[in-house]
Amino acid sequence: MLILGIDCGSRVTGYGVIESLGRTQRAVGYGAIRVPAGKDLADRLRFVADGIDEVVERFRPSEAAVEDVFQHRNVSSAFTLAHVRGVALLSAARAGLPVASYAPTQIKSSVVGHGTADKHQVRQMVTLLLGLQEEVKPLDVSDALAVAYCHASLRNAGALAG
Amino acid sequence: MLILGIDCGSRVTGYGVIESLGRTQRAVGYGAIRVPAGKDLADRLRFVADGIDEVVERFRPSEAAVEDVFQHRNVSSAFTLAHVRGVALLSAARAGLPVASYAPTQIKSSVVGHGTADKHQVRQMVTLLLGLQEEVKPLDVSDALAVAYCHASLRNAGALAG
Repeated sequence: MLILGIDCGSRVTGYGVIESLGRTQRAVGYGAIRVPAGKDLADRLRFVADGIDEVVERFRPSEAAVEDVFQHRNVSSAFTLAHVRGVALLSAARAGLPVASYAPTQIKSSVVGHGTADKHQVRQMVTLLLGLQEEVKPLDVSDALAVAYCHASLRNAGALAG
Repeated sequence: MLILGIDCGSRVTGYGVIESLGRTQRAVGYGAIRVPAGKDLADRLRFVADGIDEVVERFRPSEAAVEDVFQHRNVSSAFTLAHVRGVALLSAARAGLPVASYAPTQIKSSVVGHGTADKHQVRQMVTLLLGLQEEVKPLDVSDALAVAYCHASLRNAGALAG
């Protein structure tokens, strides 16, 4: 049972694939899709979509999870992020993967134990929980692993969302 | 020279293809991609993306134009719209079409002559300007034709955007 977590970003989109073995989870693959500078939004979206398609093709996960974008502070960044999230959801849907969506506080709670953890604490816990040899970089990647971990933890509780 | 205008919506996405013949424009095709009720966001996005891909395949336009979403009143609807706009931009980019983006006021100005026109006035003018036999329905379709018309009018003024 492989779960793909995606952390959408306008410049860097992190991904993490974890194997869910009952109560334990381990990282199978992860990385960052970095959009070259200077591209316009449509080209950036194509770059991200192609990247996610490649990840799906390579790992063949059976479910995907993303973060909600609706609680972002900066409205303009959140709009751009929603475009990226749109193409991420599309890639998952076209690959036939159900996609779950979690609030940032849910993800932090499931990984760190409380909803106000910062990204570095999330990375530290992800490293421990997934048995990684070293902390992954950049933080977009640990965030992607965190949303996959959150989904692995909560999916049995019936949290699979639209 | 065919231009595809897209009016993104969470339930209905309008499209309009116009042929730009110097100073005159005529409608070549138009319609609405209606997402069946009850689908989750990822499936809705797939439905819209497949619909736009079909339109592009059928008409083979050489440029596309969409409306900005950044001035929407309702933030939650605007986020959903940004997801749809993301997959619309992706479809265009994957088809190799440059995509221009226009503010609602620009579109209204170019079609009606002032930026505060309502959607019915836009439809009335689009009907006249594109030589249509009758008013198109729903308003998402006339809005899509309007953004295509706006692009046809402004592209020679160097308005092609990212």
